[in-house]
This record gives sequence, structure tokens and C-alpha cells, in this order.
Amino acid sequence: MERPDKDLAFMLQYENVAWYEDGAVRILDRRCYPRTVSFVTCRTHEEVAQAIADMVTQSAGPYPAAAMGMALAAHECRDRSEAEQRAFLMRAADRLTHARPTTAKRMERVCEQMTEAAEAAWKSGANVAEAIKARAIEANNSRYRKIARMAEYLVGRFPQDGTILTQCFAETIVGMMLKEARAKGKRLRIFCPETRPYFQGARLTATVCYEMGFDVTVITDNMPAFVMQNEHVDVFTSAADAITMDGYVVNKVGTFQIAIAAKYLGIPYYVTGAPDVVHPTIDTVRIEQRDPKFVLEAMGVKTARDGVKGYYPAFDITPPELVSGVVTDRGVFDPKDLHRYAEGGVQAYEVVV
Amino acid sequence: MERPDKDLAFMLQYENVAWYEDGAVRILDRRCYPRTVSFVTCRTHEEVAQAIADMVTQSAGPYPAAAMGMALAAHECRDRSEAEQRAFLMRAADRLTHARPTTAKRMERVCEQMTEAAEAAWKSGANVAEAIKARAIEANNSRYRKIARMAEYLVGRFPQDGTILTQCFAETIVGMMLKEARAKGKRLRIFCPETRPYFQGARLTATVCYEMGFDVTVITDNMPAFVMQNEHVDVFTSAADAITMDGYVVNKVGTFQIAIAAKYLGIPYYVTGAPDVVHPTIDTVRIEQRDPKFVLEAMGVKTARDGVKGYYPAFDITPPELVSGVVTDRGVFDPKDLHRYAEGGVQAYEVVV
Repeated sequence: MERPDKDLAFMLQYENVAWYEDGAVRILDRRCYPRTVSFVTCRTHEEVAQAIADMVTQSAGPYPAAAMGMALAAHECRDRSEAEQRAFLMRAADRLTHARPTTAKRMERVCEQMTEAAEAAWKSGANVAEAIKARAIEANNSRYRKIARMAEYLVGRFPQDGTILTQCFAETIVGMMLKEARAKGKRLRIFCPETRPYFQGARLTATVCYEMGFDVTVITDNMPAFVMQNEHVDVFTSAADAITMDGYVVNKVGTFQIAIAAKYLGIPYYVTGAPDVVHPTIDTVRIEQRDPKFVLEAMGVKTARDGVKGYYPAFDITPPELVSGVVTDRGVFDPKDLHRYAEGGVQAYEVVV
Repeated sequence: MERPDKDLAFMLQYENVAWYEDGAVRILDRRCYPRTVSFVTCRTHEEVAQAIADMVTQSAGPYPAAAMGMALAAHECRDRSEAEQRAFLMRAADRLTHARPTTAKRMERVCEQMTEAAEAAWKSGANVAEAIKARAIEANNSRYRKIARMAEYLVGRFPQDGTILTQCFAETIVGMMLKEARAKGKRLRIFCPETRPYFQGARLTATVCYEMGFDVTVITDNMPAFVMQNEHVDVFTSAADAITMDGYVVNKVGTFQIAIAAKYLGIPYYVTGAPDVVHPTIDTVRIEQRDPKFVLEAMGVKTARDGVKGYYPAFDITPPELVSGVVTDRGVFDPKDLHRYAEGGVQAYEVVV
């Protein structure tokens, strides 16, 4: 079994690496990366679900982790009857799907794909765990190809010499965006808000940018408006945890207020990602409230006295009126016109914002 | 020599305590307060200037610290001739005034007042250092009385049961605001952004609110828009490092983007403070850039890898169109109408926003 495209292997060091092998799934622990490169080893799909819940992997990471978790589940029940294996995988899919509320809808489809791979393996007599793993890799490669196309459309909106403001960390699109910028000879200066409480911007986005040779500056989360006003920012861009069919962007908390400030200052906001048919409207999205204690500490050090409360909405919702364009693998769309994406529209439908 | 009004003594525990006694100025070290209550002891006015530059004291703290530093300077040169003492105090005033660029204009006036006290002492034969100290306490008491009036006007804008969003830490006005709210029987829930990179909101504002018996919640600096949208915030309020006569608010970085979001969400923003005649327009304000390394660490722990740059504007500028009212000791003014404050206007000029 081979790792994904050699061409894309460079991405893996920044990826939420999750890998099934020898009866275990190893997941890169993004909570301490890149200060420490360590892996959480899961011996059961239960442990994979728990690792997802515990934020061992974040952003797009939970999906390949869950897919590899399904391969592990197949390994766990390998000695049972086919009917028992099927029932076991169904329960595993359910457990992985609900590891985190925000990712549940998309996770359900990932687990379905893995179950299909298992069905095909039972028919052909192949090793079920290996078949699921192969499907997980295939899904990841397909995602890489889509994101490479998004990066092309996104970088097309950047000037030759430009300043870009990001938000949080979206491992693949950031790497692809920089690779594409380099290929097109665009010189970018990048500002990364640190992204409290986990510091993904400072720890991860900034690391990718620096290691790929770009000029990168970290700011605290209270500075985006100042930077947009004073540092000639050309574009604010972020990925999304979900883009609803009616044009709302669900992303790391903070995206909403940066988008408001960008609009106020006349700076375009481009979000990357595909609109999500499982979310026909914003009403289907539930914002995950996480453990408030993380807001009361920084890098493991307590910041507030006992008795003071914390509050930790993981995401916020940016309405379509603040989004200049949704950058998909099929072109850039007006957030109020996303049904055209579903119709398969490509550049013909591209919106010039 | 007595400490300030007993009535106001409760404030001192939250204040940027600076106190001249026995040939030294002791300044409460706000960089680690309230985790640790420790004082920096300065044996020369030079050391006081350095402590101000090093952010030992912040917000309104540098002014009493500089005033007490002038008493110390008088003590340092006590055995010289009057002419030499006068020259020494002039140099000390210059040094303290320029300890931090942002506070220079207001600091100049503080030092002038202290020099006047010295002149009176020379005439009457009183102890110069003690005379300056007395003037410093008098100035502080006068400030307390003004801020108590601001608190009355500010709390007048709060509902009986309300939710208030703050920004950064303004020791006296926060304490006075809560005291006034309690006196008027108003029940307030308070959200405090943590205020990176120094966490003044988490460490200081939240502590004052909690210790005064209010329901207080800390959020990270990327959450104010979400909180205003989802938690029924009635008022966003902050103090100011300067309010220019043309209605611009210079305050802790982040104020600008919260004010933009508040406007977008239809929530009023009230700033407390007196318009500053030394700043007839915003063009006289210079934004202080501080050491970027503080942005690359949190509570002393490094957050980004080597090679990544930081950027640290201490303040930002909120334009008058985002300010619902300037809450002064003479009433609430329209930010575009601040000359009326200078004309001595009181409630007659109060603007209903």
C-alpha cells in the first residue's frame, strides 16, 4: 500500500497525518505540533473517536482519521462472521460520526464511503481493513486534487505583489495556495492571526508559510482590523468548516469579526471550500460549544483567577453579504448563487467580484 | 501624609499603585498581577522611567507613577542649591515624559503640575519631595472624583438587567462603574476579552469584576462579534488612552474591530474619558509600536517557530462614526461635538444616542 501521490507528499508534514497500519491508527498530535512531533496511537476505533473528540487532530484532519478508524474497526472484527462484521462496522461508523457535533454531517458521508469499500471487499474476498485504507487514501488524493484547483482560483485573485490575511489553519489549502503562488511567481506577504485558544495560526499556519519561504508575520486576534487598515492587505482569506448552500460560512471563531472589518475597510474576503449539500440552509448548522477552561489558559498557563467563567464557541457564522466569493474547485462563486456549483458549473459561472 | 480618600481606598487594590516613601517609589507590577502581588522598587527617577517603559504599570498607571517619580527626583537632588534642584527636576520631567511615546503629551502636563508644587515649596520652605507627593495624591483624588461622575453617566446608559462587553483594563473606571451599578441596583453580566498579548482583560478586568461580586466571563479576542451576536450584549464600553478633540478614540489594539462589529450588529459603543485638548485632531497621535516578540509568546511560552515575525501596535484608532457617545465627567457627548466639553458643558449638552 503506497502513500499518496509523491507530488503531494510535501503536504503530509503539515497534514493531520492519520495512518492505519499493523492494527493501529497513528494520528499526528496537532495540539503540540510543531513544537513537538508526536503521534497518538489508537488500538481501537473507539480510541480514534476519542482522539477526534479531544482535538488531537483538527480542521480537515478528523475525516481521514475517521476513515482510517474504519479500517481499524474492520481489523478489530476480522475474525467474526460477515454479518457480525457488518454490524460492527455500522456501530463504528456511528461512533466516529458523532465524535464531534460540528463534523458529524460530513463524517457520516466519509464513513458511508468506507462501508462501501468494505462491501466490495466482502464480495471479492479481499482484506477488508486494507480495502478501507485504500479507499481512505483515494478519498484523500481526490481531496488534494480538488484543493489544488481551489488554490489556482484563489491565487488568481491575488496581485503579483500582495499582502494576504489568513485566519486559523487549513493545512492543505494554505500549502497549495503557497505552492501555486510560487509557481505563478507571486510574491506574498502573509499576516496570520494567532487563533486563540489553540494558537493554530501562530503554531501551524505561520510554520507552513515560513518553511515554504514566505514572509510571514503573526499578530494577536485583536489586530486584524488594524493590520487591514495600515498594512495594505489585499485579500482576507480563510477555509471553512462548512459552507451552507445559502452562502453562510461556518469557520473558526473570529472569522465573522474579521469579515465585518474587511467589509468596513473595503477589503475582499474569499473563502475556500465546496458548498455543502448536507446544509441546504444555515439553520441546519449547530455551533459547537467546547470546554470553557481552554479560554482561561494560554499554552497551558492559567490566565484568569478562580471563579471567573470562560466561554468557548468553536466556530462562528459569516453571512453571505460579507463574503466576496466562494472559491471552489469549479471556480469562484457568488455566495448567493451556490446552487450553480451543485449543477456542476465551472468557470463559465465564475463570478467577478 | 495620608493615603487618598478612605472612601476610595477600595480602588487601590486594583490601581496601578505607585507610592513615594523613604527615598523610593514602589510600583505594583501589573505584568504579573494578580497571580503575584509584587512591587518594583525604584531608587531613582531614572528607574521609574524605565519601569514605565517596561510596562510595569499600564493604562492610567504611568501618570501617578511619574508624579511620584518627580517626588523621588526632588529627594535625589535635595542637598543641592535651588537652581540646581530646578534644573534637575526639569531633566527628570523630560525623562519621565518620554518614557513611553503614547503617554508623552499627557505626561508632560502631569510633570508640569509637579514642578509647580516644587516652586511653591521652595517659596514656603516646605519639603519639596513631600510637597510633590501631596500634589500627586491630590491629582489622583481629583481624577477619582471625575471618574466617579463618568461612572454615573455610563451606568445611566445600562439597562436594569444588562450584559456589558468591555475591552482591556481601565482600573478606576471599571471599579467605579461596578460600584455605581451596585448602588443603583443594576444587575450586570460582563464579558471581558482577554486582551492579548498581556491578558489584561483576563488577569485584571475579570478579577475586579469577580471580586466586586459580578457575573464575569472571559473570552478570547476573536470572540467579541460572536458574543455580541449571540449573548444579548447591551453595551460595548472601553476607556481610552486618548480621545482627540475631533472625536477619535485611541485605545488598546482591538477596540477598533470591536467597535466596527458593534456598529454592524447595532450595539452602542460608549467610551469613557475626557477629550484631550493636546490632541486637537487625530493627526497629532502617533501609534506606539512595541517589541514584536511579545506577540510571539503567551504567558511567557513561545507560540511560533523561529524566523516567523511578530507585529505589535499597542493601540488602534476608532473613528467618531463608530462611537455612540463619549462619557465624560460633564455628561455624554456626541464624538463630533467635543468642543462643548471644553466649553465646560454639563448635562445640558448631554446627547441622547
